[in-house]
Amino acid sequence: MEKRNSVFIATSLDGYIADKNGGIDWLDSTPNTENSDMGYFRFMKHIDAMVMGRNTFDTVCGFDVEWPYTVPVFVLSNSLQEIPAKYQGKAHLVKGSLSEVLSTIHKQNYHRLYIDGGITIQQFLNEDLIDEMIITTIPVLLGDGISLFSALNHEMYFELVKSEVHLNQLVQSHYTRKRPQ
Amino acid sequence: MEKRNSVFIATSLDGYIADKNGGIDWLDSTPNTENSDMGYFRFMKHIDAMVMGRNTFDTVCGFDVEWPYTVPVFVLSNSLQEIPAKYQGKAHLVKGSLSEVLSTIHKQNYHRLYIDGGITIQQFLNEDLIDEMIITTIPVLLGDGISLFSALNHEMYFELVKSEVHLNQLVQSHYTRKRPQ
Repeated sequence: MEKRNSVFIATSLDGYIADKNGGIDWLDSTPNTENSDMGYFRFMKHIDAMVMGRNTFDTVCGFDVEWPYTVPVFVLSNSLQEIPAKYQGKAHLVKGSLSEVLSTIHKQNYHRLYIDGGITIQQFLNEDLIDEMIITTIPVLLGDGISLFSALNHEMYFELVKSEVHLNQLVQSHYTRKRPQ
Repeated sequence: MEKRNSVFIATSLDGYIADKNGGIDWLDSTPNTENSDMGYFRFMKHIDAMVMGRNTFDTVCGFDVEWPYTVPVFVLSNSLQEIPAKYQGKAHLVKGSLSEVLSTIHKQNYHRLYIDGGITIQQFLNEDLIDEMIITTIPVLLGDGISLFSALNHEMYFELVKSEVHLNQLVQSHYTRKRPQ
């Protein structure tokens, strides 16, 4: 089965995924009267499981909403000892190198993975393990915050598959990795 | 007359305008068989003069081509003593604070300005003096280089005017500054 690691994330114009206090209120700065999901559900239809770091997991657990995922969530953490009781069966702790983690997940028959969280995405990019990125740009300069991208050992080219505008304000671009032949 | 300071620039997906060696070869990584100008000439029709820093001026002088501008160029530099003889009449040295510089330029009846170069754009943004940005995103992660944006004292919201795709690969988005009322 095709294996694919995908990113679906929003950033500010200056490339931040959260402000300097970790805040994400600015994500909702564009009025959404039509209640658009910005293509999220269409994207999730083709996702078997999520992979996220501990920070993102903690953030999601802190939201005052029902557990938002219908696919298994793998939490990448070498420090967390176990998944809190409340989330057992929904979230699963995975440890080790990314290749070990991916091997563990693939063996359970989850192949199309949604990679989430700044540090986790950066780790995957560092090992050239991201195949697809859907990036939604919010029209704000934050000036400081948590960056989506970090230093890389070498440049990586992508192919633009599609770009569309949501809510008349948010540019969403879909890229796939163009690896050297 | 309406005063407007505009940016028209290309960046990598990770927000760099040049690689770590100052190189910009990656800007031409997308085949341009149709010889598209990516909207540059349409943009320049509404520009009275350019404002750039010394680095950008030196870079342009180093290009092995004819002087590329048909509008006056103001070079913002407190270190340069004078414009080299070859470029006199085309480029003009301006010194002082941005408000002094803008006052000097406006008095000469140039009101719609193309602000170019990373440091100069950052200086203008820091004083909230950019009214419009047309940003073309090249589908590459460079991983390191010279950033378009830098730290800001406060967030700045923009309005998306238009987004279009050039050469089937380059997303060009046109933003105007949305200042608090």
